[in-house]
Amino acid sequence: MPGLSLSSFSFEDVPTSEVDAAEELYGGLAQDVRDLNDVSIRTRVDAGAVERARDLVRQAAEILAADAAEGPAGIHFNAEGRSWNWGNAVVGVRNAVAPPVRLEWHDDGTVSSRLELGTPYEGPPGSVHGGVSAMVLDHLMGETASERHTRVTVTGTLTLRYVQPLPLGPVRMAARVSEVSGRKVTVTAWIAADEDDATPAVEATGLFITPRWAQEPETPSGIGSLD
Amino acid sequence: MPGLSLSSFSFEDVPTSEVDAAEELYGGLAQDVRDLNDVSIRTRVDAGAVERARDLVRQAAEILAADAAEGPAGIHFNAEGRSWNWGNAVVGVRNAVAPPVRLEWHDDGTVSSRLELGTPYEGPPGSVHGGVSAMVLDHLMGETASERHTRVTVTGTLTLRYVQPLPLGPVRMAARVSEVSGRKVTVTAWIAADEDDATPAVEATGLFITPRWAQEPETPSGIGSLD
Repeated sequence: MPGLSLSSFSFEDVPTSEVDAAEELYGGLAQDVRDLNDVSIRTRVDAGAVERARDLVRQAAEILAADAAEGPAGIHFNAEGRSWNWGNAVVGVRNAVAPPVRLEWHDDGTVSSRLELGTPYEGPPGSVHGGVSAMVLDHLMGETASERHTRVTVTGTLTLRYVQPLPLGPVRMAARVSEVSGRKVTVTAWIAADEDDATPAVEATGLFITPRWAQEPETPSGIGSLD
Repeated sequence: MPGLSLSSFSFEDVPTSEVDAAEELYGGLAQDVRDLNDVSIRTRVDAGAVERARDLVRQAAEILAADAAEGPAGIHFNAEGRSWNWGNAVVGVRNAVAPPVRLEWHDDGTVSSRLELGTPYEGPPGSVHGGVSAMVLDHLMGETASERHTRVTVTGTLTLRYVQPLPLGPVRMAARVSEVSGRKVTVTAWIAADEDDATPAVEATGLFITPRWAQEPETPSGIGSLD
């Protein structure tokens, strides 16, 4: 994606211990919002109860709005090489839209994730939305292309093959680099139910590209994929 | 996606007026949860204020949990041909993960949508997550393949080309059927900033398929795309 540059990232003079504490504080809030959304979808309570619940939700929002940033969360990094993108739609621990995905980096270069895709990620009845599988695979693959954040990559093309429905519940996914050619990195990936010998529900191939500006030596470490 | 069948859909003996009233009631709650999530990402209030907000959020969830369905929302239809999938990750009006996308069906066969993709949909700093663009396009294209829900389709393959960043904010997208061959429907689509003459940020091509079971005459109308 042209149009991004180093100025898209903001340096914060904050020690990692403070970053971790803030992540835990606000991450707990986001988890409560995730739980609230889940039950909001499933509730059958009457109009009076809905009104009482809405009143509490709006009170909570008012407390949080008393001091809030104007814009989106962005991507930040500190002098210790810690980076954080808490608002990210896939991995953002402060964002209730995000499951959030947590990545596991393996020594053989594969990157995997186990996650719960429950009620809020439904498409066909009882199944994960095909677009949600695309969304989480796109992020996983971008991170895989970044090779543990040793290079910055953006998505060029992404192809998804839908093989069978993915039931809502625990899922796992994995990705690996299949080819590197100059600034181009090809990644393959799959997502499946988190069961032994589960057949992949969706298979994906993506082409990821390192932008020219990201080859500059002043690129901060820890940025990785620009999904 | 094999594995789905007519039994995935549930007939409800409820008049459309009651369906509409319930949609408005619980849809309002979901909008409050969306607003809460947005400010939860941006807030800078201290730990005490976060605790007070979390307490209110948990109280709201408890009220809603007093009577709630066990499983996900599913897809329902009534005798009047009204269908609803309120938990859907893209269009579900009761789901705060969903923006929600609202579709406009045009006489020339195109389907379009204007929507706001704000703070909770961030990927690169200030930009919409590439996976979010994939998610909403997948849904739009599936619905387009269904030709105003006159046929049931599932996603076969989806290819996305990322052209440039999509700034967070108002966006629009459009899709059209480019080819129909037996049970296979090819759809093309794009998403762009909602500005005059905006260049598409992402272009997509998808192959959608009508499952054999969905060709049976007892298929309820109004199901459309199984995204």
